[in-house]
Amino acid sequence: MHRTYSMRNNRAPTAQQMATPPPPPSSTKTGRFFGKGSLAHTFRRTTAGSFGPDLARKLAQLVKMEKNVMRSIELVSRERREVAKQLSLWGEECDDDVSDITDKLGVLVYEIGELEDQFIDRYDQYRVTMKSVRNIEASVQPSRDRKQKITDQIAQLKYKDPNSPKVVVLEQELVRAEAESLVAEAQLSNITREKLKAAFAYQFDALREHSEKLAMIANYGLSLLDLVDDQAVTPGETRPAYDGYEASKQIIIDCENALANWTFENAAVKPSLSIRQGQREGGFELEDEPLRGEGMEDWGEQDKIGEPAEATTSEVPAEEKGPAPVMAA
Amino acid sequence: MHRTYSMRNNRAPTAQQMATPPPPPSSTKTGRFFGKGSLAHTFRRTTAGSFGPDLARKLAQLVKMEKNVMRSIELVSRERREVAKQLSLWGEECDDDVSDITDKLGVLVYEIGELEDQFIDRYDQYRVTMKSVRNIEASVQPSRDRKQKITDQIAQLKYKDPNSPKVVVLEQELVRAEAESLVAEAQLSNITREKLKAAFAYQFDALREHSEKLAMIANYGLSLLDLVDDQAVTPGETRPAYDGYEASKQIIIDCENALANWTFENAAVKPSLSIRQGQREGGFELEDEPLRGEGMEDWGEQDKIGEPAEATTSEVPAEEKGPAPVMAA
Repeated sequence: MHRTYSMRNNRAPTAQQMATPPPPPSSTKTGRFFGKGSLAHTFRRTTAGSFGPDLARKLAQLVKMEKNVMRSIELVSRERREVAKQLSLWGEECDDDVSDITDKLGVLVYEIGELEDQFIDRYDQYRVTMKSVRNIEASVQPSRDRKQKITDQIAQLKYKDPNSPKVVVLEQELVRAEAESLVAEAQLSNITREKLKAAFAYQFDALREHSEKLAMIANYGLSLLDLVDDQAVTPGETRPAYDGYEASKQIIIDCENALANWTFENAAVKPSLSIRQGQREGGFELEDEPLRGEGMEDWGEQDKIGEPAEATTSEVPAEEKGPAPVMAA
Repeated sequence: MHRTYSMRNNRAPTAQQMATPPPPPSSTKTGRFFGKGSLAHTFRRTTAGSFGPDLARKLAQLVKMEKNVMRSIELVSRERREVAKQLSLWGEECDDDVSDITDKLGVLVYEIGELEDQFIDRYDQYRVTMKSVRNIEASVQPSRDRKQKITDQIAQLKYKDPNSPKVVVLEQELVRAEAESLVAEAQLSNITREKLKAAFAYQFDALREHSEKLAMIANYGLSLLDLVDDQAVTPGETRPAYDGYEASKQIIIDCENALANWTFENAAVKPSLSIRQGQREGGFELEDEPLRGEGMEDWGEQDKIGEPAEATTSEVPAEEKGPAPVMAA
C-alpha cells in the first residue's frame, strides 16, 4: 500500500512487498498481439466526461471507468465457468478418482464464476449510486455559472459607467442568484456525502461477502484434493479402487450449505458488534454494514494478525471521537 | 451450486438463489457494441488443442482457457487501479473531509488492484503445473500408438498368411511395446495425480490469501466511511472543520499492517491445525496448505455457519480414512 497514505503522492514499496519475495511475474503478462486492453474500454474511458458540465466531468469519468471494471469482471466470471466445464471434461477420461475429483473441482470453480457474476450485480448498485452524485454535480453547475456571469456584468458595467441604473438591478439579481446558489451548494454538499457513503458501503459489503465465500470455496477445494490417491504405482500395479464418491459429494454439499448460510453476522473476517449499530442502521439501506464502533473492534481483531497495528490502534478511538455524534444523525 | 454435484449434468437453482432474491442484473451486462468477449480470447480458446496428440487435447485447451482467465483478471486489476486514481482525483476538488476520505478510499481500492495483480502471478503457478500434466499426456501418446500399430500389423498378417515368420517377430515386438506402454501409463497415472493436487493446492491457497485480504480491506474501507460527516447542512450553514486526517491515516496504516502480517496460520476462514501436517508438508512445495485433518476441522468450522452441513459431516471422516495413509507417501 502507499507509504504516503495518499493516492496523490508517489508510492513507496509496501511492507508486504518487502516482507515476502513475490513469485515470478505471470507469463501471461507478456506477448500480446491485440494490445494491452480492450478498444471499447479505452474508448469509453477517454471519451467520458468530455461533454457535460466541468463540475461533473471527473465523476462522469469515474462512473465510466467503473463500467469497464464490471465488464472485465464479467469476462473473468464467464471464462471461469468455461474453465470449470473444461476441467470436468478433461477429467472424465481419466481414472475414477481423478474423474470424480476434477468434476467436483469443476463444480467449485463454476460456483466461483457464479459468485463473481452475482458480485457484478451488487457492484452495479455502487456504480449507480455514484452516478446520482454525478447528476447533482451536473445540476449545480448552472447556478454557479449564472452567479459568475452576473458578477462579471456588474464589474464590466461599473467600469464603463459607474452611475448606470442597471448596476442596481444587476446587484439585486446577484443577491437572488447567490441565494439560489447557496441552496444548490448545500444540496451538493449533503447529497455528495450521503451518496458517497452509501455507494462505498454497497461496494465494500458486496466485496466482504464475495471474498469470504471465495475463501470458503478454496478451503473445501483443498479438502477435495485429499481424496485423490497420489501414491506412486509401479508399472503394471493397479490402484486400489476409488471409494471417495460419497466423501467428495459430501464436501460439495457442505460447501453449498456453508455458502447458502453465510451472512454478515457470521462473517469470518468479522468486526465484532458495538452498541452503536441501532443508530447506524437507519443510515442507509444496508443493515449489516459495520459501524464506527465495529471499525475499532475490527482493528482490535486485526491486532491478532498484525503486531505493528497493535502499537498504534490505541490512539485511534480518541481520534475518532470527534465526528462520532454526527453519525447518529 | 449444482444440486447434482456434477458438472456433467444440468444444474438446478441453488439453495442460495432460492434463499436470497438477487439484485437486478447489472446494467453493464447489456448493450455491447464490440461483442461479448475478446477476439483474442475466443481465438485462443477455439484453436487450442487442435494440434498435438489427442490425449493431451482437452488439457491443452484447459491451459489456454486459464490463460484467458488470467488476462481478464489482469484487465480488472489494471482498471481497478485506474479507478482508484480517478476517485482520488475527483475527491480532491471536494471539501476537506470528502477529499481526504476519497483519497484514502482510493488507496484501498488501488491496493485491491495490487493484490489482484499479485494473485495473477500465483494463479500462473497453478496453470504452469497443469501444463506439466498436459506434457506427460502428450509424451505417453506415441507409446500407445506404437502398441496399437503393431497389434494391427499382426492381425493383418495373420489374416494374409498365418504361418509367416514375421508374425513371431512382430509378437516379440508387441511384448516390448506393451512393456514400454505399461511404464508410460504408470508414469502418466502418477504424475497426473501428483501435479493435479499440487496445481489446485496452488490455486486454492492463492485464492484463500487473496480473498481474505480483500475482506480485510473491505472492513477497513467501511470504517473509513464513518469519518465522512454526512449530517445535512442548511443553506449558508458551514460544516464543522474536518478533523479526521489522523484517524483516516491510522486506518490505512492498520490495514497495511494487517495485510502485511496475514499468514495462512492466522487466516480468518481458518481450518484449525491437525496432527497430520508433518506428513503433508513433504507433499508439495506449499508449507501452508491445509491438510486432510484441517479439511475436516474446516467443515466443523463451517457448521457454525451452516447447520445443514452439521448433520452430515460426521460421516465424512469415515469416508476419508481410506486414502488417508496414502497421503503420507
